[in-house]
Amino acid sequence: MNQDYIKADAWSIIEEGFDKEQVKSSESLFSIGNGAMGQRANFEERYSGDTFQGSYIAGVYYPDKTRVGWWKNGYPEYFAKVLNAPNWIGIDVVVNGTALDLNSCTEISDFRRELNMKEGWYSRTFRATLPNGIAVQVAVTRFLSLEIDEIGAIAFEVTPLNDDVEVVFEPYLDSGIKNHDTNWDDQFWNTTKVTSIGAQAFIAAHTMKTNFDTCTFMESKVYYNGRHTDTPSEKTTKDTYVSHRYTQKVSQGGTVALHKFGGYTVSRNHGTGDLIEAAQEALQKATELGFESLLELQRNAWATIWEMSDITISGDVKAQQGIRFNIFQLNQTYLGTDSRLNIGPKGFTGEKYGGSTYWDTEAYCIPFYMATKDQKVARNLLQYRYNHLQKAIENAEKLGFSNGAALYPMVTMNGEECHNEWEITFEEIHRNGAIAFAIYNYYRFTGDYSYISEMGLEVLIGIARFWQQRATFSKDKDQYVILGVTGPNEYENNVNNNWYTNYTAKWCISYALEQLQKVKEEYAQDHARIVTKTGITDSETALMKEVADNMYFPRSKEHDVFLQQDGFLDKELITVADLDKTQRPINQKWSWDRILRSPYIKQADVLQGFYFFEDHFTVEDLEKHFDFYEPFTVHESSLSPCVHSIQAAKLDRMDQAYEFYLRTSRLDLDDYNKEVEEGLHITSMAGTWMSIVEGFGGMRIVDDMLSFAPKIPEQWESYSFKVNFRDQIVKVMVENQEASFTLEGTRPLTILLHGKPLHLNPEEVSTL
Amino acid sequence: MNQDYIKADAWSIIEEGFDKEQVKSSESLFSIGNGAMGQRANFEERYSGDTFQGSYIAGVYYPDKTRVGWWKNGYPEYFAKVLNAPNWIGIDVVVNGTALDLNSCTEISDFRRELNMKEGWYSRTFRATLPNGIAVQVAVTRFLSLEIDEIGAIAFEVTPLNDDVEVVFEPYLDSGIKNHDTNWDDQFWNTTKVTSIGAQAFIAAHTMKTNFDTCTFMESKVYYNGRHTDTPSEKTTKDTYVSHRYTQKVSQGGTVALHKFGGYTVSRNHGTGDLIEAAQEALQKATELGFESLLELQRNAWATIWEMSDITISGDVKAQQGIRFNIFQLNQTYLGTDSRLNIGPKGFTGEKYGGSTYWDTEAYCIPFYMATKDQKVARNLLQYRYNHLQKAIENAEKLGFSNGAALYPMVTMNGEECHNEWEITFEEIHRNGAIAFAIYNYYRFTGDYSYISEMGLEVLIGIARFWQQRATFSKDKDQYVILGVTGPNEYENNVNNNWYTNYTAKWCISYALEQLQKVKEEYAQDHARIVTKTGITDSETALMKEVADNMYFPRSKEHDVFLQQDGFLDKELITVADLDKTQRPINQKWSWDRILRSPYIKQADVLQGFYFFEDHFTVEDLEKHFDFYEPFTVHESSLSPCVHSIQAAKLDRMDQAYEFYLRTSRLDLDDYNKEVEEGLHITSMAGTWMSIVEGFGGMRIVDDMLSFAPKIPEQWESYSFKVNFRDQIVKVMVENQEASFTLEGTRPLTILLHGKPLHLNPEEVSTL
Repeated sequence: MNQDYIKADAWSIIEEGFDKEQVKSSESLFSIGNGAMGQRANFEERYSGDTFQGSYIAGVYYPDKTRVGWWKNGYPEYFAKVLNAPNWIGIDVVVNGTALDLNSCTEISDFRRELNMKEGWYSRTFRATLPNGIAVQVAVTRFLSLEIDEIGAIAFEVTPLNDDVEVVFEPYLDSGIKNHDTNWDDQFWNTTKVTSIGAQAFIAAHTMKTNFDTCTFMESKVYYNGRHTDTPSEKTTKDTYVSHRYTQKVSQGGTVALHKFGGYTVSRNHGTGDLIEAAQEALQKATELGFESLLELQRNAWATIWEMSDITISGDVKAQQGIRFNIFQLNQTYLGTDSRLNIGPKGFTGEKYGGSTYWDTEAYCIPFYMATKDQKVARNLLQYRYNHLQKAIENAEKLGFSNGAALYPMVTMNGEECHNEWEITFEEIHRNGAIAFAIYNYYRFTGDYSYISEMGLEVLIGIARFWQQRATFSKDKDQYVILGVTGPNEYENNVNNNWYTNYTAKWCISYALEQLQKVKEEYAQDHARIVTKTGITDSETALMKEVADNMYFPRSKEHDVFLQQDGFLDKELITVADLDKTQRPINQKWSWDRILRSPYIKQADVLQGFYFFEDHFTVEDLEKHFDFYEPFTVHESSLSPCVHSIQAAKLDRMDQAYEFYLRTSRLDLDDYNKEVEEGLHITSMAGTWMSIVEGFGGMRIVDDMLSFAPKIPEQWESYSFKVNFRDQIVKVMVENQEASFTLEGTRPLTILLHGKPLHLNPEEVSTL
Repeated sequence: MNQDYIKADAWSIIEEGFDKEQVKSSESLFSIGNGAMGQRANFEERYSGDTFQGSYIAGVYYPDKTRVGWWKNGYPEYFAKVLNAPNWIGIDVVVNGTALDLNSCTEISDFRRELNMKEGWYSRTFRATLPNGIAVQVAVTRFLSLEIDEIGAIAFEVTPLNDDVEVVFEPYLDSGIKNHDTNWDDQFWNTTKVTSIGAQAFIAAHTMKTNFDTCTFMESKVYYNGRHTDTPSEKTTKDTYVSHRYTQKVSQGGTVALHKFGGYTVSRNHGTGDLIEAAQEALQKATELGFESLLELQRNAWATIWEMSDITISGDVKAQQGIRFNIFQLNQTYLGTDSRLNIGPKGFTGEKYGGSTYWDTEAYCIPFYMATKDQKVARNLLQYRYNHLQKAIENAEKLGFSNGAALYPMVTMNGEECHNEWEITFEEIHRNGAIAFAIYNYYRFTGDYSYISEMGLEVLIGIARFWQQRATFSKDKDQYVILGVTGPNEYENNVNNNWYTNYTAKWCISYALEQLQKVKEEYAQDHARIVTKTGITDSETALMKEVADNMYFPRSKEHDVFLQQDGFLDKELITVADLDKTQRPINQKWSWDRILRSPYIKQADVLQGFYFFEDHFTVEDLEKHFDFYEPFTVHESSLSPCVHSIQAAKLDRMDQAYEFYLRTSRLDLDDYNKEVEEGLHITSMAGTWMSIVEGFGGMRIVDDMLSFAPKIPEQWESYSFKVNFRDQIVKVMVENQEASFTLEGTRPLTILLHGKPLHLNPEEVSTL
């Protein structure tokens, strides 16, 4: 691993000592967010060293003009990107005329960062000697409020240690911000108003092209030794900048503090309402409460989240820290209250991947949100795709499909495709399968069929139409084939008959036809509406059935396994264990063609199918496929170890399962992929949760019942987690080889434990 | 076809009437070049309408920073591009204070362009009424001298028709030029000196990064009614511009003429010598001769070229014009005197494709140059690759190959790869085969083995090493396979076992091993040198042989043909004839994935192999493969029709052969691909020549003898061509169904005619 400087701690992420080389990594690791906005852990005061500034507003994006080397027909004109938003956290700090800048201080000691996940705040403390010889003690605490999600708060304290001094705080707003990853160096923001009203300041800016209106705002108060001072500020206004300058004499050992409240109001949430007025309201609420009371509300809000979603692990503090970090970041990124939002691969911690929605949401994130939140949250995530159905149909039309066939985009912000690599954009079409699977998975878990009859069936029909049209009848094979695809393993491009894709396609069609039948029988009114809207006919469903019933699956007789794709056995099948270690990771060491013709697998592909459709196969089948494919898997995708951990646990290979678990849970904390400075891997964090709950805990839905088959890695004394199952909460505690269950609810519930029924009564501890 | 405005004429390209919509197309079609430089047919005077300015210097390129959407390991950092060079042709023309600008004239009549291919000059004449009411007659003649290849000459004549006027000529040089296709809007030129010395002006500029020094220069003389006037000019000098302004009173009906000589001197040709001095020398030669004498030398030089390379066709003026246009452009682009130069796909007529060297040179151009020039020219083209061998080895190393394996670049200026599409750059590796084939082809035609023993064998070894390492042993097939390639048909990417690639690979290895053996036996000294230099061992050649002997070739029993690649028969095999015409051309109508999974073939792929290795297969084999593949071929590459024309002729399908011939020979003149304004398709023009000589003429080398099997399309009365065979010239005349042969040489020569020997004596006409 690249970096390993985070202190092991059950509830906090802690860095001790200042290392300029770690600044960008720590900016990622100590990121904070509240679902509505988020930011990297940039310093408030100026920092002249190497840094990656980032502040982001949920759902506010910019369609950056596509940049490609060689244009292919069908490419989208734009790539919707998460926007680096105006900066509201900035505070210039000047002591006796010299700026506080950790890059120029002559001495820094006791530097410590803490991200307190239990309470939802981030702090930084240090002692520093400025170039002018003044030594100061600095303590900063910052959080983004869950209570008022347009508000963030900063308490910035300075204590001079070796002299009486004059401290200047100059909090500011700055909308002269560019994305690091702009394709053409375009300006994304147009600032229309910069103003100060009393102690408050506002910058109105809208995004170019998308015209999201935003108001970035701040209000600050100065305290000297804990008492509010009324000193007026000097105000400076520029084109994209406003600051309020507070000057305070501070005696040696005395403490001056600036409390800065800031954040964003956005037209997405306020319609045509006045965003400055909305900002004033938010500021009024925040300042009336004050920093401490707002922080207390923050602690309470996080306590509520943890009450439901915490996973405890005893006997292994690094594993404990890992899973909490994952759960914490998922909750910082997405809280499920807004069906227009989704979960970007980097959340609010960086720009990579454009910050948009991938199939990660359906394949990895929905189970976490389904089991740890109200089921409305998962439904909101499903509805997000329903809302984009028309765009998915248009996307398929661009690629030559017709009659309502829907291809969901690989990457999107608003339903439009915005990726532009032909082998991904046009060919990694299995994403459609994950979107259909999530509908099935949601109903399986929640028992809520209303989503299918009201919305989901239309999505399923669009997807089934796509697969029917996308399959080709091979006269040679006398079966349907699917040519030219990229499977989940992106280390293969443009292959024929990727087993996972073919299997998923067949399943999607069958499932859609079953639901069409069920809705016809049980929800006649919905059926009539959907038939009218989609124009689906019996002859079309017959065509679909023909494809599903006659789908070709590549298979090796010799190895008795399904083949990842046609021709897989032509490869030189040298396992990863026999691969020279200097060649790893292959995505950094090898040219693309070499990767493609190698047998190496980036992430579960056939095994992803065995994960989704587990009950279609025997354990012996799974074992055979695991033994065949895992040895070729390099796990160079963050989404790989979790699925393998779950399957290794199922196969009772607990050491391997544990190793995969650590790799997924501490991927960012230990920076396995040497790229944490670009931001965190948010979506794979949901896979970490699955590794424990579905892997070690063995949670499944079997015959409409919650089912467990708990196992425990020998490194752990015990672990526990909770699952919200149909509005009742089941707490699972696994200790040694025993599992006990507590039902928090009002109705008795029968679950399965290792296949046997176990009756749970409310508030009782049950075990077999 | 898109445009069809060029008048049919046996020797000239003629446009009549001014149409703003055609300006850019005509700028391509009327391009002139002399091997050392070339330029689009831009107007000398200012033109405010839509135009694509282009002037190019052979071998002067710029490594533009690569632009891609998604970086892949192994991509080159730079794409070497032909440079749009400083403009020396510009002449501002002002009549009574109003600029002559065809875009603003109130009336234009008698507009006519002629590109006189026989004599190598380009002229433009028209009458125009300026916005100030003055009507003028204008006649311009321009050529790039073959005699002094650093010199171009322009005679620009103005005759006022309705008043006495004052004409201002302001010839200028301008180095403030950018490429249209710059990736990052970079400046490619750095101008270091702008100066006037007497009647001459010079701009010294060097290219950024590559540091090619150039001097762009001019000298002008004014004539009034044929008499030289001594009026001094007013000089203007700016950062990247210099002009000389001549003012002349002209009576109604009188003619004022400006003779402008200009061009480039380049450090490539003058080393560290003073380029301004070199320019002065060139100008002195040119002005001493004067416009008319220089033009007379031009006529003579072109007469010499035509004497050898002309093809006559009687009874079909469009076919005649087509072939001469192709031969003319090839000679304008490359004259074969400099082994550092090569033939870019657009020659000097545009920027597309970067202007670099592709496999087109070996696959299509070498036969033309071999048969119409001294054999040194073809040898120079081969030596170009020998000179780049070390770079090809480095290129292969970047992709993970070792031990001297060589992968020649897909696109290059200096031997380094500069393309950046993984499916082409890394996978269209069959280019290596064409480079080896050209060595074989050169020896077969010229009988000059010295290239192989002196240089070629090293190239062959590097290529054979590449194929041996690139092949993979498939346990499943118990044969060697080649995975992940793009064949000549670029409408398939990343396929396994492209038959053409596998066949070529096998042949390359076998041929290299045979030559190694032959050199060992017959050129012991060369053998020793090469073994030492390359380190080739018996164990390595055994490995190579193992691969060649056990190569896998995909084949269909049902259709009794080789398959283009594994899985080809899974496609929906609807022929082009049955494809909805609104879907053509598919490369404009379909998304890339749809093209890839279709059966449609961009250009000969299996059939390219049947072309190269014709004598490995029977005519029945060819027919079977032609009948199987041609119906799926959309010919959307300029390189496609020629090969099909040759094979159709061989199969006695003369109508089809003729149709393909017209398509290849008039591709640009009739703008089949609707893109002629971007420049001409230079390399495919050599294919046109092949269609006649190898297709209709049936020229081959059989048992070391020149062999013909002439056929004639029914649309033609007769045709003739000449072939330079081993320093003697064979003139072939085909009339009706008879062919006659004239030997221009000193030694009798036996050729084969339809497989039977025919003895030719010098200067006699022979027939069977």
